[in-house]
Amino acid sequence: MTVTLLIGFHSHQPVGNFGAVFERAFRDCYAPLLQMLAEHPGVRVAYHHSGCLLEWIEEHEPRYLDDLRALIARGQVEVIGGGFYEPILPAIPERDAKAQLALFSDYLEKRLGQRPQGFWLTERVWDPSIPRLLRDLDLRYTLVDDAHFRYAGFRPDEIWGHFITEREGRPLHIFPIDQNLRYLIPFREPEETLDYLRRRGEATPGFVATYGDDGEKFGVWPGTKEWVFEQGWLKRFFAALEANADWLKLLTFRECLAATPPRGRVYLPLASYEEMMEWALPAAMIPPFERFVSELKAGQRWPELMPFVRGGHWMNFLAKYPEANLMHKRMLRVSRKLDRAKRRRGLDSARRHLFRGQCNCAYWHGVFGGLYLNYLRHAVYEQLIAADQALETAARGGGDWLAGERADHDGDGSEEILVESSRLSAYFHPREGGSLMALEYRPKNFSLSNVLGRRLEGYHQKLASAVAPGEDAGHQSIHEVIKVKEAGLEKWLIYDRLPRFSFLDHFLPERLTLAEFREERFHETGDFAGKPYAVQHSQFRAASGRLVLAREAPVWSGSKETRVRLEKSFTFARNRSGFGADYSLTNLGESALAVNFALEFNLTLLAGQAPDRFYRINGKPARPAHLASEGETEAVEKVELVDQAFGFRAALAFAPAGRLWRFPIETVSQSESGFERTYQGSCLALTWPLRLPPARPLALQIRLELQEL
Amino acid sequence: MTVTLLIGFHSHQPVGNFGAVFERAFRDCYAPLLQMLAEHPGVRVAYHHSGCLLEWIEEHEPRYLDDLRALIARGQVEVIGGGFYEPILPAIPERDAKAQLALFSDYLEKRLGQRPQGFWLTERVWDPSIPRLLRDLDLRYTLVDDAHFRYAGFRPDEIWGHFITEREGRPLHIFPIDQNLRYLIPFREPEETLDYLRRRGEATPGFVATYGDDGEKFGVWPGTKEWVFEQGWLKRFFAALEANADWLKLLTFRECLAATPPRGRVYLPLASYEEMMEWALPAAMIPPFERFVSELKAGQRWPELMPFVRGGHWMNFLAKYPEANLMHKRMLRVSRKLDRAKRRRGLDSARRHLFRGQCNCAYWHGVFGGLYLNYLRHAVYEQLIAADQALETAARGGGDWLAGERADHDGDGSEEILVESSRLSAYFHPREGGSLMALEYRPKNFSLSNVLGRRLEGYHQKLASAVAPGEDAGHQSIHEVIKVKEAGLEKWLIYDRLPRFSFLDHFLPERLTLAEFREERFHETGDFAGKPYAVQHSQFRAASGRLVLAREAPVWSGSKETRVRLEKSFTFARNRSGFGADYSLTNLGESALAVNFALEFNLTLLAGQAPDRFYRINGKPARPAHLASEGETEAVEKVELVDQAFGFRAALAFAPAGRLWRFPIETVSQSESGFERTYQGSCLALTWPLRLPPARPLALQIRLELQEL
Repeated sequence: MTVTLLIGFHSHQPVGNFGAVFERAFRDCYAPLLQMLAEHPGVRVAYHHSGCLLEWIEEHEPRYLDDLRALIARGQVEVIGGGFYEPILPAIPERDAKAQLALFSDYLEKRLGQRPQGFWLTERVWDPSIPRLLRDLDLRYTLVDDAHFRYAGFRPDEIWGHFITEREGRPLHIFPIDQNLRYLIPFREPEETLDYLRRRGEATPGFVATYGDDGEKFGVWPGTKEWVFEQGWLKRFFAALEANADWLKLLTFRECLAATPPRGRVYLPLASYEEMMEWALPAAMIPPFERFVSELKAGQRWPELMPFVRGGHWMNFLAKYPEANLMHKRMLRVSRKLDRAKRRRGLDSARRHLFRGQCNCAYWHGVFGGLYLNYLRHAVYEQLIAADQALETAARGGGDWLAGERADHDGDGSEEILVESSRLSAYFHPREGGSLMALEYRPKNFSLSNVLGRRLEGYHQKLASAVAPGEDAGHQSIHEVIKVKEAGLEKWLIYDRLPRFSFLDHFLPERLTLAEFREERFHETGDFAGKPYAVQHSQFRAASGRLVLAREAPVWSGSKETRVRLEKSFTFARNRSGFGADYSLTNLGESALAVNFALEFNLTLLAGQAPDRFYRINGKPARPAHLASEGETEAVEKVELVDQAFGFRAALAFAPAGRLWRFPIETVSQSESGFERTYQGSCLALTWPLRLPPARPLALQIRLELQEL
Repeated sequence: MTVTLLIGFHSHQPVGNFGAVFERAFRDCYAPLLQMLAEHPGVRVAYHHSGCLLEWIEEHEPRYLDDLRALIARGQVEVIGGGFYEPILPAIPERDAKAQLALFSDYLEKRLGQRPQGFWLTERVWDPSIPRLLRDLDLRYTLVDDAHFRYAGFRPDEIWGHFITEREGRPLHIFPIDQNLRYLIPFREPEETLDYLRRRGEATPGFVATYGDDGEKFGVWPGTKEWVFEQGWLKRFFAALEANADWLKLLTFRECLAATPPRGRVYLPLASYEEMMEWALPAAMIPPFERFVSELKAGQRWPELMPFVRGGHWMNFLAKYPEANLMHKRMLRVSRKLDRAKRRRGLDSARRHLFRGQCNCAYWHGVFGGLYLNYLRHAVYEQLIAADQALETAARGGGDWLAGERADHDGDGSEEILVESSRLSAYFHPREGGSLMALEYRPKNFSLSNVLGRRLEGYHQKLASAVAPGEDAGHQSIHEVIKVKEAGLEKWLIYDRLPRFSFLDHFLPERLTLAEFREERFHETGDFAGKPYAVQHSQFRAASGRLVLAREAPVWSGSKETRVRLEKSFTFARNRSGFGADYSLTNLGESALAVNFALEFNLTLLAGQAPDRFYRINGKPARPAHLASEGETEAVEKVELVDQAFGFRAALAFAPAGRLWRFPIETVSQSESGFERTYQGSCLALTWPLRLPPARPLALQIRLELQEL
């Protein structure tokens, strides 16, 4: 009996992760894993490192690459390619996906001395159109989960070796990753893995098993540094593989392809690993899905029925999280600009920034997946804005410029107004309350509107049964443990009714408290916030521009309804790093109307409170927002958000002065280490008690300025 | 309360359907339906007719198009576009899908006076890449089933109006078809439809319902001609719609798009209607899937759990039916040739033939779906070969030509040898027994290898509970009725072990009977049929070519194993409508070997027995194959298959003469009208009792000729 085992490691750190995280992962995982491979020449593996990780290693630990190259040269390690910056391939334009795959193959050949024949499928998100990408590329295989094959109707005992698929006739070999091995390695004693392989080999002549999983399970995952290295699991495992070479053949994937024909034809459905497909479901669908699956598993028929039962697919994250959608559409906008500019020279850096901005981690959320991590989203925006700026500079030359455009930017079927200049981007959403949905300070590549809203997650109901801080859950899988990082997180489970945009126009009840406002415990007394505004005027020339949004709608006071016209006029100049907003409120009724008008802004500097990131109110340093209780005591005519880390400030000036409410937007989400609270942005609400006489417009002036420190 | 109802009809007849079927459908369905619309100006609908149907109507009933144009002109009917010849969009190359959509929009604008804004999604087979197709097109919407939305995680009460999706930023509006309406119309009294709409409208302000279904349900489906027209259902239905115009608004889809924004963003998974997804599963998975669904439905939780439960996807038909795959890959080959020739002029007819050959019906099988209908597959091949011939003629000018090519034609990961000439196509499959997998007589655009094998279907187990012929099942849905067209079909449930190719090399047991051979009740005594052959030699020049395939493998006789070398040398000449095959069998053992060698051919003339399609054996007319019992009594040196309908014959000559077995390949499959037996092709097996002395090659000569009558 001979069994062939193919081993694939995948190591990745997202664009924008903290240097300390890279360092720790390198020290605890990547370096010792490679070292262990060097010491066990009988162990043969294929290794995918994402381009983002390789760039960090190249800069900080270049010797690692030399060592890796040596293992490749001696035939022990095979390189695996992929999209350079680990994008979800079907989520980015085909031209970019192809370019990222090609760029990475070229890089690997140059730096590591081998051109890859296979590519790592980011998050194993399969889409049937993927083989199309490969038409002009020399990539021949990829790895997916055995779950993908179950969903395609294969029996478990049929899923081994490799299969072949195609799209438009472009073939691709596919190796199904054995889930049993993913659960055994590195969590169980090596002998269990050998037993499993022996058993399969005895039942199936010529059995070929594929193991493929995250390299981070060897040192980065909680507890694995001790288990895998300090307690010698990996050494035992590699030694066991070498000791059983008489029946256990270790091949690289390219060797296996050369030696054996595909076991059959397959057309996989949209799929990823089981957990990802659950995470992609709408939040409200996750608990019934989990219940259903548990019942089936309890009933013993799971192995038979599993192929018919599945959750959602990755693209649904864009429907589930409008913030992911906005980031995605910002990415598409930059990609289109690059595509239109393709004949221009000197765009390599723009392209590189765009590709970095396509790194998947910040676009989704499960247990991993960093949508809830503001610094990961920031890193994506930083790259996208840098790419955009490089493209505009290449197209326009230096100097200031200003442009306005009507387009359905977010893909909701209605048009938005996109204002861009050398200094800022300001995207307005007429249908969504005439609000400012995106604000970017381009000289610093900084998105100030990168605020994630508070919304229901499928796991929020589990907060009750979470493990208290300090408790240890042993070697359980991350998917099974429920921990919390602080007590009382339930009280942060507040769900937003509107996107956390800016220039949201509220009419609030009298005597509303900040707490009620923060907790969404109030009814609007006017029909404005989040409702469609008409584009009254929109004209942009080279030096200046003006946009007027307006809405007529009722304001209620007691049982009385009065129509009010709200007009907001935004003015831009190409040489100003900001813009003015002139509000005009007109009472269209016949008697005077008292209203509690509020303007809401949601902006972020990545931290709610930090020594180098703080508020100034009316020119004076202010206490952190999370300490603000019932609002400022004085009338506020100026609020500044100062960021000494990035070296800029955002200032909002109001005339007349108003009353200021401030509070942080904080979400409750799940991560590898438990439930946690995360700062997403700062809500600033200026309120004015106004008396609107009939027919006489009342004016408010707001000025927003962005400035380098 | 106001409810909006959008009505969409889809009418289609496949390329290659019988003229009588078109005529009957026109008379019983299309004509009276249009007439009824003309008489009810208050009823407004959108109407998709497939291009294949419109071409027939244009030729035979052009006044229908004038009438339709008039209804469009008066704003009562909206045209819906689509792929011209009703292709499964994700199953054909993007360039062809785009061209078919554009061609159809142009045609509709010209012939019917309106450019479509929407397209009918063939068989509602959604693939997330579909919006990509639309980048340079002016199509804005399509219709899918509400099931698609359930799979995307929507609650039933959320699925109405229209939604928006995108790929790479290209937006597309999607109307979900209401399944309740599909089950009510035209099967229940009109009042039930009105009640349903009223109930939904009361619960949901602004409710917009979409009905979309096959026009054939109005007159073509069994019993509907009487019910819908003769018993006045349609008249009552249209009158009821008109009578309730105070609350029930009928709009076209384009009017609805103009009047209301999308209800949200959606990313649909791969999906079609529920039944299609079941049919696409591997046969063995269908019964457990059906049981699972029945249990869930019986348990009342189906509405909650349905989103998580699903079958396969359309592309799996290509894995499930190798014959569908071969047809698909033949289509891709022609498409690539056309793409490479794109700068050449005069290729409109080749393009038209290719597009006709992409018509979906012959590529799959469910209850509808015509893979089992040999004349539909023939029609596809006919179009593909005609396209191929037009392309080659344009590229090479007139005159004879010959070419050979090594390529992985069928996408199985191994190379085949493709021989093509002005007279024939002959594709050889070295890995699959060195057999002839495709044989086409190009002057007649005829595929003789178009033989569908006998294989397990998920519904074969239901034959026991089928309704006897003559019984009536009333107005039940087609999906529920099980009928048989003849008794005793169970005995035709024979499953083939090898693809029904030709030049299959068998070593058969002594005293095997034709019945045992036909019923696959035997073991090979040699390891040749279906096993890999080496390509010993393959050289093709302009005037002639030669291909030598060889295999050395054991032949068993009793407990004795002897190695035998089988070499087959095929020779081609550009001016010959056929080719020779020189067989050489060498006993590599040390003592003489007696074998029962058989050469199997599977060819089709579309009918097993017909006055104008018959066999000639040794130059004399022969009795039909289905009457052949234990083989011909005389030694056979020549078999001819004569087709007076298409005007050609295929002749096989053997030296030395052998014993001939003939039998028809007949399948048992499900159709609208019940289980039926269908002729797929004729199996011809020539057998020779041979004595192979050691080391001395033994020769057999075979000549295959195709000839016009």
